[in-house]
Amino acid sequence: MSEAQVLVSGAELLEFTRQLFVKAGMSPQDAEVEAEVLVWANLRGVDSHGVQRVPGYIKAALDGRYKVQPNVRVEVETPAALLIEADHGFGPPVTVSAMRQTMEKARQVGIGWCLLRNITHQGAMGYYALMAAQQGMAGIAFVCNPPNMAMYGSKAAGVHNSPIAIAVPGGDHAPLILDIATSVAARGKIDLALEKGIPIPLGWAMDKEGRPTTDANLAAALLPFGDYKGSGIALMFACLSSLMVGNPLIAPRLLNRPDAAPLGTQNSVVAAINIGLFTDLAAYKANVDTLIEAEKDLPKADGVSEILMPGEIEDRVKGQRERDGIPIPLATAQKLADVGTELGVAVPAALAQG
Amino acid sequence: MSEAQVLVSGAELLEFTRQLFVKAGMSPQDAEVEAEVLVWANLRGVDSHGVQRVPGYIKAALDGRYKVQPNVRVEVETPAALLIEADHGFGPPVTVSAMRQTMEKARQVGIGWCLLRNITHQGAMGYYALMAAQQGMAGIAFVCNPPNMAMYGSKAAGVHNSPIAIAVPGGDHAPLILDIATSVAARGKIDLALEKGIPIPLGWAMDKEGRPTTDANLAAALLPFGDYKGSGIALMFACLSSLMVGNPLIAPRLLNRPDAAPLGTQNSVVAAINIGLFTDLAAYKANVDTLIEAEKDLPKADGVSEILMPGEIEDRVKGQRERDGIPIPLATAQKLADVGTELGVAVPAALAQG
Repeated sequence: MSEAQVLVSGAELLEFTRQLFVKAGMSPQDAEVEAEVLVWANLRGVDSHGVQRVPGYIKAALDGRYKVQPNVRVEVETPAALLIEADHGFGPPVTVSAMRQTMEKARQVGIGWCLLRNITHQGAMGYYALMAAQQGMAGIAFVCNPPNMAMYGSKAAGVHNSPIAIAVPGGDHAPLILDIATSVAARGKIDLALEKGIPIPLGWAMDKEGRPTTDANLAAALLPFGDYKGSGIALMFACLSSLMVGNPLIAPRLLNRPDAAPLGTQNSVVAAINIGLFTDLAAYKANVDTLIEAEKDLPKADGVSEILMPGEIEDRVKGQRERDGIPIPLATAQKLADVGTELGVAVPAALAQG
Repeated sequence: MSEAQVLVSGAELLEFTRQLFVKAGMSPQDAEVEAEVLVWANLRGVDSHGVQRVPGYIKAALDGRYKVQPNVRVEVETPAALLIEADHGFGPPVTVSAMRQTMEKARQVGIGWCLLRNITHQGAMGYYALMAAQQGMAGIAFVCNPPNMAMYGSKAAGVHNSPIAIAVPGGDHAPLILDIATSVAARGKIDLALEKGIPIPLGWAMDKEGRPTTDANLAAALLPFGDYKGSGIALMFACLSSLMVGNPLIAPRLLNRPDAAPLGTQNSVVAAINIGLFTDLAAYKANVDTLIEAEKDLPKADGVSEILMPGEIEDRVKGQRERDGIPIPLATAQKLADVGTELGVAVPAALAQG
């Protein structure tokens, strides 16, 4: 264990996080889901979307910006589609419930398509796509927020780096889980660099003047992958989510309009496709396995020791962290311990070392 | 007009192309659609997906590889979803018909999701997405083929550079039409460079040894945008289309299996989302307009004179080419004229100059 971090078991972190959210006013069931989605990200090495976020979330809960008891309601429902008003509820419990309803529609009519309005941070979108894969379906999830990424051709943030996740089940192999932002790097990775006090690679972000920067403190806008392709995808995702639910998040903020939605508000789409309705599910899984094996067996580029599938690194980290524990930077551990003390939740010994 | 090309009016090119396909055995209605989709691409400056392809298509029709009278049949149908076996029919007429059926489902239940199996080249996918936008819907279309793009980490083609198109309607503004491949450049752009005898930019493709190349003749595999993100998206699109219809195109070819589908076979997804079912359509269109205006008004990067929206360049080219005609490289014009002569179709005078 390095001096700069502590190791905490996933189980301890899950229980601690769950109790924090219960103390913050969430139902035990919702708190369980919230903690599960966050710790899942940590277990998979996606620390930018893990418990690092808890102090901010708890603050948002206590402020009332994120609602622990939201009035979530279905506004539109058809045999295939849903529009759910999330009333600024916490992302994970609302989205897990939405994905369950969406999968039920897919079970009946092949596809379920769910729009979520006024939700708050949903954590790692891969979690929701994986829910579908675990039920023998393909899962898709994406999200839009206010602008944090450069529109191609501009030196200012003009779109959100909308993450998208797509997952499908394997047979002998683990599910494929693609979980990517449309920026070169996720915002959370810059936050993590800030937390760790380390520089960021060139090409991740630009400063307020539109100049490339390696200083996480100066990162004013993320940069899109594939230049105009990344910002174009992000723009269209805004049209498919935020505009589709009548809750534009980008233009009101770019135009400094007083009706701009509060920061932290996001809109999202989750979808499920029922594989077994279109083809034999066992054959599908076998075909995914064969595809994975054929890809991994391709001739490797110079300096590459292994061709990796979407989600493969994260699966390995999960195996390792389930055995060895989750490394938490000292600064994060201290903040988490402080929140525990403040809310009267027993702080795990490993975390208190921070 | 440069020496190396001729100018032909869209109307003449449309009628000539239509007649060629009728002579090749297509029904007049299907030939009309086929010609319309190809000339639409030329009008928008996407020459890689325009009439340049006609000589190859006609040959495929006469060989029977692309069927002019396919036995297209719906294999799975629910209130929201379709699986259509295209029987190697021509992409445009089959896909236009499929998109119409898909929009009808979206009209009823909010989303229509259509899987197409064993279709042949569909031309510019933006056409089908735009069909939805013109009906007040969002349109999505993507396609998978055998491998032509590097899997990240490999020096061989391991995925298809699956193009995806997304379109939504504007109000005063034209629809937004994103139409991109997951490679840095589309394969058709390399074919066009071959046709024109010009080099390709570094970063578009690699040769058989996995080395970057500027020689279109040596381009053995396209390169993905965003490194692992581009090839990851392409891999997941294969799982959402080809594997979903039980017709894997990639692994059988990578493994040199005798049951590999013939080249030219592709699988595709087209989808439509009925905006008016979720939000007020007029307000949606106004929000798209506001978004476009806010984006275009962002501070410009150094050296950039205008921030462009997805489809905007193509719309301008269309305006210009509708006035001035479509430039056709001499080599292409000659091939088209030869096909016309061979099939007994009168060759437009402008084309015959080639």
